[in-house]
Amino acid sequence: MSIELEPVAVVRSSRHELIDDRWDGETSFIELLPHINQIALTGLDSFSHCLVVGYFDRATDGQLVRHPRGNHSWPLVGIFAQRAKDRPNRLAISVCAIDRIDDNRLHVRGIDFIDGTPILDIKPWMAEFGPRGDILQPTWSHELMATYWDDSSTD
Amino acid sequence: MSIELEPVAVVRSSRHELIDDRWDGETSFIELLPHINQIALTGLDSFSHCLVVGYFDRATDGQLVRHPRGNHSWPLVGIFAQRAKDRPNRLAISVCAIDRIDDNRLHVRGIDFIDGTPILDIKPWMAEFGPRGDILQPTWSHELMATYWDDSSTD
Repeated sequence: MSIELEPVAVVRSSRHELIDDRWDGETSFIELLPHINQIALTGLDSFSHCLVVGYFDRATDGQLVRHPRGNHSWPLVGIFAQRAKDRPNRLAISVCAIDRIDDNRLHVRGIDFIDGTPILDIKPWMAEFGPRGDILQPTWSHELMATYWDDSSTD
Repeated sequence: MSIELEPVAVVRSSRHELIDDRWDGETSFIELLPHINQIALTGLDSFSHCLVVGYFDRATDGQLVRHPRGNHSWPLVGIFAQRAKDRPNRLAISVCAIDRIDDNRLHVRGIDFIDGTPILDIKPWMAEFGPRGDILQPTWSHELMATYWDDSSTD
């Protein structure tokens, strides 16, 4: 069974290179493609956040198990236990803040997709669809995320 | 540009029909397909939650703007401002709790996909990738979600 999808939008971002960290320094918007009428965005600005599904078009299928970021001080974990871009189906998820809608453009803050990334879907963030109960995650995942958003230092 | 994806797993659920509400009464697991080795799940059980990307294989493309659930007491909103299954690319997202891994089966709680739904990706839930800042959403979305999970009454 094969599933064929068609991008609905594209990301325009100040980041053009594949760099993992410090995403908060970037500015971005999502632009609908010509075949999607901008009425599809109606009312999205009554939500503070949205969930965006992208396609890592410059990634590869990758391995089913690996050390996150190739760092051997972190455990060997399966691809479904990490967020690496080199994964089966190369799907990307970003939960970002909605700034404003400007015709067919959705301006967002905190989207971690580089310029040109094809977008397959946009959904409003509803708290009821978020994780329920206490969130537990391993130490390595917190270490990996330490400077993921932070743009305050430039080392 | 067309993107071709191949399911990596399938949902096995006690729910076989397209019903919107009271998902907490169901039991479900995700079963990897034979071409995906179970090592891909290694370490996922060190997380409490995961994000699952599915494909609404029994949905249609739908309209770009509609009243959520056809309810005219709620506003007319774009498809990207609601979670309806009849949407471009028919992608489904569920954030659910991880119960345990049993060989090639990932047992979960709170996944809102019916039996047989193809799965395209599984990612660990890391708090750092969740929404940042206060979450705001319109009243209609809270009303719509009122009995989405609840299985305590049977009206």
